[in-house]
Parts: sequence; C-alpha cells; structure tokens
Amino acid sequence: MRFDIITVLPGLLESPFAHSILQRAQKKGIAEIVVHNLRDYATNKQKSVDDYPYGGGSGMVMSIAPFSSCIEALKAEREYDEVIFMSPDGETFNQTIANELSGKGNIMILCGHYKGIDQRIRDIYVTREISIGDYVLSGGELPAAVLVDAITRLIPGVLNDETSALSDSFQGELLDAPIYTRPADWNGHKVPDVLLSGHEAKINEWRHEQALIRTQTRRPDLLED
Amino acid sequence: MRFDIITVLPGLLESPFAHSILQRAQKKGIAEIVVHNLRDYATNKQKSVDDYPYGGGSGMVMSIAPFSSCIEALKAEREYDEVIFMSPDGETFNQTIANELSGKGNIMILCGHYKGIDQRIRDIYVTREISIGDYVLSGGELPAAVLVDAITRLIPGVLNDETSALSDSFQGELLDAPIYTRPADWNGHKVPDVLLSGHEAKINEWRHEQALIRTQTRRPDLLED
Repeated sequence: MRFDIITVLPGLLESPFAHSILQRAQKKGIAEIVVHNLRDYATNKQKSVDDYPYGGGSGMVMSIAPFSSCIEALKAEREYDEVIFMSPDGETFNQTIANELSGKGNIMILCGHYKGIDQRIRDIYVTREISIGDYVLSGGELPAAVLVDAITRLIPGVLNDETSALSDSFQGELLDAPIYTRPADWNGHKVPDVLLSGHEAKINEWRHEQALIRTQTRRPDLLED
Repeated sequence: MRFDIITVLPGLLESPFAHSILQRAQKKGIAEIVVHNLRDYATNKQKSVDDYPYGGGSGMVMSIAPFSSCIEALKAEREYDEVIFMSPDGETFNQTIANELSGKGNIMILCGHYKGIDQRIRDIYVTREISIGDYVLSGGELPAAVLVDAITRLIPGVLNDETSALSDSFQGELLDAPIYTRPADWNGHKVPDVLLSGHEAKINEWRHEQALIRTQTRRPDLLED
C-alpha cells in the first residue's frame, strides 16, 4: 500500500513516520509513505502557496495551482483509489473507515494549513473528506499521520501479533476490559483474583463482563446499534 | 502553559513539536512542551517497561513502576491541573474540552503503547482519560500531539491573527463556509460572484447561508442541540 501526502510542512511528518509501526511497515516493504513538499510545486517567483481570501476575512487560503500541479504529477505516475482531504468538516474517521481504507492500493492525502484550501481543489480533485474529530488543529499534517497509522497497522503482516489488532477496542462491539501485569500487589493495589486463577473460562467471562460494564458506563452509544 | 508528556517513543514526537504553531508557541515562551522517555525510569536490569498480561492474551502491558517513578518525580517539582491518559476508551475529545484545557497551567500526558497500560496506573494517577476518536492507533503519541496542538493554538498570543481561531469550524455552531482565493477563474471553475462583489453584507449573508447548508448536509447532529 502506498500513501502520498501533500503538505506545506513535510518536516513535521518526519519523526512520526520514522518510528514504531510505521517505520516497521516501510522497512518490511508493506507500506510506502511518500511526503511531498507543496512548495516545490509553487510556480510564482515568491514560491507562495497561499493568498488572501476572496470576500475578505482573516487567515490565508491555499491556492489551487500548486496542489493541482502536484496532484496531476502524481496521477500521471499511478492510479489512486482515493484523494483524501483532511478537514474538520469531513466525515468523522472511525475504525470502520480505517478497515475499509486498509484494503486499498494507493491513497493520496492533502493537508490543509492556514485558514484552509481553495474550495475548487476540493470540488475538482478530492474524492473523500475525512475529519479525525470535532476539534480544530493547526493543519492537516497530524490528522494525516493519524490516518496513516490507523490504516497501516491493519495491513496483514505489519503487527507482530495479528490477534492483537483484532482484540482492540472498536474492532469488536465493546471497549477493552482492564488489563494488568506484574506485580500482583503494588503498594496494596491488587490485581483482581480471577486473573491470577488460571481458570480460562472464568477469566474470559470476567473480561467480557468488565468490557460490557466499561462500555455501558463510558460509551453507551456503542451498544445502541 | 506547560505540557509534560511521558512516552516510550520520545523520538516520534520530535518533529511535530519542532514546527509550525507549536514551535512558535515555545519560542515565544507561551508554551513549554517537555517529553520524558519512560525508559529512563525503568528500574530493572533490562530497562523493560512492559510485561505479559495477567490472565493471558496477546500483546504486552506497560508496567506500573516506570510510570509511577516518572509521575512522582514530576509531581515533586510542580502541581499538575490534570494527568491525562490518551486512550480510545476515554471521553471523546472536542473543541469544548480543548477550550477548557487551554485555560490550565500544567498538564501531564501519559502515552500508552503496546496493548495498553496496567489499569492501576489509571486508577491511582490519572485524573482524565481522553480519546481523540473512535479508532485504534499504535500508541498515545500522535493523540498527545493532537491534544497539545488543539490546546496550544487557543492560548492568547500563539496565533498571529487571533480572529482566525475564533472563526474556525466548531468554535461557532456551524461548519465553515467554502473559501476561495485567486485566480477568480481556474480553467472555467469560477469563484462565486458574490465574493467578488465587494458588498460586505451580501458576502456575510452568503457565508452564513453556505455554512448552514454545509452543516445541514454534513453534520446535522451539530444543529440538534
């Protein structure tokens, strides 16, 4: 799977893609993540990628031309399953979308910055607009990293222990049960007896019960469907 | 405002905190972001920070001792308004929480990794658990960066143009209206006439109408309250 990310701040994405699961996925050749500097596609003398908004108002708007040049250059090289724009007014990202996108081949991701991007970029090129949540960030770079991380870890072969991804919160209908490791007693704070019992059926029953309680308490909306 | 972030992957957070608004906020002395390597607080010979889960199952669980040592060391230096654990089963982060947290002084953020952290860390130390959305990521590092970014840009003096933050999606009740910049005609794709009219009242009316349409179409749930 290949991700092409277009951003005005390529440096911001360096360390997230050079560590942990994303690093491993790239080393294994399972995922390719290519970050493109939008400024390389600016055509005017000042190498500017933004301009004042029509109709007035605060903030700068990212111009069509650099995005268009970069997107067209990439599309000339390969076909893309999706051209995604990270935006707070896009569809809200969730595990279902992550699962779906993890089956794709090539994904292009556009990161906005400043006040936003010219609407025509969205109208002409973007096939899908995704928000990682109902909050405003400085740009689309961190959301792009979040998207790539959530998707990549689902590709078979990326995680060492494949059952680990399947048992995560949101892959089932319930949140995870509490988990514990050694020591069994930490200054009087003890691990529940059942987890030390070695009785597998009872442990599974306890975990299901705890997952249910946690979901009912914290996220009753997940049980409604 | 000060953020202390505890992670097993401090390098992953380097570039997000060294660019854009987070870099500027630190240079201006408005925000201090300190990343702590959890492994520095491991006490056993192997410097391990995780162990097998009690009761069996896949994945490793982060141990209490290193977190406890790091948290206690930080708490001995200053008081914290919140000790936040980034977790998919926490309360869902939104702009209201971002606004609230931007008024705090010192915030500690714990990043989980692997299968998760020993429940007792959450029980003993954590004052608030926050999820950035309903999806699973490799660890709490990107969520911590998202949280810090969303909060920091709200602190007065961080953004160059303060009205810019106030007019963002989610600060009002509506999503943003479409925005445009030059050229007025891009291969036949034209900017709406009203934005070129110079008639401020009409422009404001159009923007409000467009914001309303966009919100009704994309996020009718935002209009329900």
